[in-house]
Amino acid sequence: MFGRLEKQIEFIREIEKLKTIERRNLTLDDNRPENSAEHSWHVAMMALILSEHSDMKVDLLKVVKMLLIHDLVEIDNGDTWLYDEKGNESKFEEESNCADRIFSLLPEDQARELKSIWNEFERQETNEAKFAASIDSMHPLINHQMTGGRLILEEQISTKTVVSKKKHIKNGSESLWDFSKKIIQECKDQGIFSD
Amino acid sequence: MFGRLEKQIEFIREIEKLKTIERRNLTLDDNRPENSAEHSWHVAMMALILSEHSDMKVDLLKVVKMLLIHDLVEIDNGDTWLYDEKGNESKFEEESNCADRIFSLLPEDQARELKSIWNEFERQETNEAKFAASIDSMHPLINHQMTGGRLILEEQISTKTVVSKKKHIKNGSESLWDFSKKIIQECKDQGIFSD
Repeated sequence: MFGRLEKQIEFIREIEKLKTIERRNLTLDDNRPENSAEHSWHVAMMALILSEHSDMKVDLLKVVKMLLIHDLVEIDNGDTWLYDEKGNESKFEEESNCADRIFSLLPEDQARELKSIWNEFERQETNEAKFAASIDSMHPLINHQMTGGRLILEEQISTKTVVSKKKHIKNGSESLWDFSKKIIQECKDQGIFSD
Repeated sequence: MFGRLEKQIEFIREIEKLKTIERRNLTLDDNRPENSAEHSWHVAMMALILSEHSDMKVDLLKVVKMLLIHDLVEIDNGDTWLYDEKGNESKFEEESNCADRIFSLLPEDQARELKSIWNEFERQETNEAKFAASIDSMHPLINHQMTGGRLILEEQISTKTVVSKKKHIKNGSESLWDFSKKIIQECKDQGIFSD
């Protein structure tokens, strides 16, 4: 009876799992790890508020879609931390498999559209992909500074490493990169990143 | 130096608090209460996937904006449960005050835009507001059915009450209301809603 809608609801049910995927960011209540669903909401909000800072013209709805779906692929294998060199070697293949599995729950046209948007984000070639990545990379800096970054502090990440992993923020927005550098410096002064 | 951007980042920091606001929905990991940030992500995703079921033409970006921001006003006073008659009497005024406080952190033009979108959602007059409300009301039904709805079960909500609180889903989408009725019936069969 509900054909297409039944499939769409099955997808909506599947992505409930994103609320169980933990990240290295922290929350304000009991300093628990942030999960990827909350993170996805927060970066989508950042896109709405900060889109004027994109250095290139962007389709805001596409940027928001990218940010809402970009972490769905963590459902099967969890979040791979930016500074985990080994984990990042196998990340793309694992996440691509997960994208195929999850998006295939949807009607075929929607599966194709979402996989295409996810691929576009990963390839980092379009204006929307670059700006979405700037937002996604800036968010943890804001979070570490606000929460004290307990889970980062433990790993003794050097400020130089942070800068090298974050400098692509500039590809989407010079002003967001300037602001990010200010936060990185302040995090260093707070002892969150090492010398 | 950063003028406008500094204000925008202050707003981004303030809304971090939405991750600490608990709802009656539950998550799949340890059956903990869902928070309003995760909920906002999930309903924004539903809007992306289900927009073809709106009975009226909608601007999808506006629907997504409404759903991403609609619960920010819970930051000062928490989530008011749909079935809490007393709590709902003072809800609008409290939430409107919170909207004024939070949105005023932003540059004036953005504060005006977001307050206006929030008001539009509350007034339930436009196509976008009606469809966004359909999505927002359908989401807990899907969640209760998947998770067993422990926090709802405790309150012994009657199926008749659920139907009367949810029937406005029809104002945005006949087919989502038909599907919602099916879920309500199944929840009743599971014992989540009483006779």
